[in-house]
Amino acid sequence: MPAEVLEKAQQELVDWRGHGMSLMEMSHRSDEFLSVRAEAEQDLRDLMGISDDYHVLFLQGGASTQFASVPLNLLDDSQCAYYLNSGQWSKKAIAEARRFGRVQVLAETRACAPEASSWSLGDVNDAAYVHYTPNETIDGVEYDYVPQTGDVPLVADFSSSILSHPIDVSRYGLIYAGAQKNIGPAGLCVVIVRKDLLERCSDKVPAMLNYSIHAKNDSLYNTPPTFSIYLAGLVFKWLKEKGGVEAMAKVNADKAARLYAAIDNSDFYTSPVHVAHRSRMNVPFILPSPELDASFLQGAEQAGLMNLAGHRSVGGMRASIYNAVSPASVDALIDFMQQFAHQHGEG
Amino acid sequence: MPAEVLEKAQQELVDWRGHGMSLMEMSHRSDEFLSVRAEAEQDLRDLMGISDDYHVLFLQGGASTQFASVPLNLLDDSQCAYYLNSGQWSKKAIAEARRFGRVQVLAETRACAPEASSWSLGDVNDAAYVHYTPNETIDGVEYDYVPQTGDVPLVADFSSSILSHPIDVSRYGLIYAGAQKNIGPAGLCVVIVRKDLLERCSDKVPAMLNYSIHAKNDSLYNTPPTFSIYLAGLVFKWLKEKGGVEAMAKVNADKAARLYAAIDNSDFYTSPVHVAHRSRMNVPFILPSPELDASFLQGAEQAGLMNLAGHRSVGGMRASIYNAVSPASVDALIDFMQQFAHQHGEG
Repeated sequence: MPAEVLEKAQQELVDWRGHGMSLMEMSHRSDEFLSVRAEAEQDLRDLMGISDDYHVLFLQGGASTQFASVPLNLLDDSQCAYYLNSGQWSKKAIAEARRFGRVQVLAETRACAPEASSWSLGDVNDAAYVHYTPNETIDGVEYDYVPQTGDVPLVADFSSSILSHPIDVSRYGLIYAGAQKNIGPAGLCVVIVRKDLLERCSDKVPAMLNYSIHAKNDSLYNTPPTFSIYLAGLVFKWLKEKGGVEAMAKVNADKAARLYAAIDNSDFYTSPVHVAHRSRMNVPFILPSPELDASFLQGAEQAGLMNLAGHRSVGGMRASIYNAVSPASVDALIDFMQQFAHQHGEG
Repeated sequence: MPAEVLEKAQQELVDWRGHGMSLMEMSHRSDEFLSVRAEAEQDLRDLMGISDDYHVLFLQGGASTQFASVPLNLLDDSQCAYYLNSGQWSKKAIAEARRFGRVQVLAETRACAPEASSWSLGDVNDAAYVHYTPNETIDGVEYDYVPQTGDVPLVADFSSSILSHPIDVSRYGLIYAGAQKNIGPAGLCVVIVRKDLLERCSDKVPAMLNYSIHAKNDSLYNTPPTFSIYLAGLVFKWLKEKGGVEAMAKVNADKAARLYAAIDNSDFYTSPVHVAHRSRMNVPFILPSPELDASFLQGAEQAGLMNLAGHRSVGGMRASIYNAVSPASVDALIDFMQQFAHQHGEG
């Protein structure tokens, strides 16, 4: 989270804008919260250029709940859901969808995204949607193109790259993103869904997973995570002040380029990801021996560099350089990496 | 929320206990967050006397998600779920359960709870569970007994009265409660489930709604709402310091008795709820004419008394005197009510 946002939240935590109580204590139907919610939605629409053809929903349960909600709402028995499998999160989305209907995997890759020319929907006429994961958080793999799916709605899990660069929302049927990377605190999930798709939602779906019910109720079907929505709203305002997603994309590209250069210019560190599909948000790298991992992590922590362990399913290191990570922090990481490499025999 | 809890959260918001970052920025698998979660669970177990026969889960999606999770996990096609309908929230739970299986209503009441002698399970042998709502938030109705269901698991939505008085957990198969009343901020839901019931959970259920999956993963199947769990933990510590639920029950009974006395001793205000089933948490009351409602609410707000409008589905007034509402605040409400009554012709 950006420091400015946390400081603002701290100031307002006990007495929210002179109302004598915390926003957490206000009813989710109070004018105060309703205006916080409406402003957050409008700011997100402005930042991402979301047209009136789409609903913006603020939900709970993270992307993992969306893994179920997407097929439960959009897939019926006569159809098939098509998935691109490019890493750990795609795989989870696919496993969850299989509980609810027919699923087919169009392409499967690791350490790179499937090349655009390597797969196609062909002439299938039973496609409910195509799902992919534009940025694989754990694997550090990012697509360098938007999949072409014709009239078939494209669904994307943008959890780890939403708001880090411009996205042409009009090319998607549905976008979802857990908030805890580039938006705000854990416990909030943003869903951007094209209005015509709501016709597919059936009343067999749990109400809390039904997009149509949430859309009709402006995400107030039950008590929403009010404080998380407020924090997300503060992040959106911070992003606007910083020049929006275009400016953010430039900073992020720069940060990533410097970090990958440090890895590539070293004989010590290795990137496990295909050059064309390296993520600008999640940068995995490997030390010459896994036995050095613990000492690297310990030294990094002493230098104030946290959260560098790779996901427990893959090991190694991973630097997640989300919007809130400053260029100076990336430089500090590079300095530490170079120092550590020298200490352990590089050069 | 208790003022002491908000102040502590404010102090720790930007720099959590000297770690140089907010708890919101820490990984949900960091030692720091894991210890916050474990302590919160232990404190809740201590406060409620929850034995090792039960799992304690910290989930998302509020009680409304549980309305679906309960039948999805506990009810199969060969069985029937039995419900007591005593108000608006029971009704919602029943409507949701009907999406997923056979449901039968054992008793239906408004403005009071069904008398224990007015219903029974009889000799049914197809009961998956019996569900009831011990405290109806909107209607202000509270049961004065725990339903007897023999070997059939009793399921209760304790959203608006958990931790306000002692609960004999061993009489329940499953207890759930949205956090936003007596526990903490919106966006967290506590589920207390007897371990043997997890055998019923099927893999057709969305993973995020599957109790068995959450239990196996210590509520860390996906990123949990870390900040909300931390805040809930602070509330649990505050409750322990205040003497636990027994002490809280005494204070709450006192607050409620004074407020109901003020209503009953007045010719101006009326309680719509049967005396034996009046809620100690949610106190609805009615003015002589609905035309006075707006002026009552306005005057109350000027006196610093917020959130007094009845639910939009029932109208009138409702004072929610949860744990965090001090006796002094209740007295201030009573003073205002008496003053308003005099101004508008009482006496």
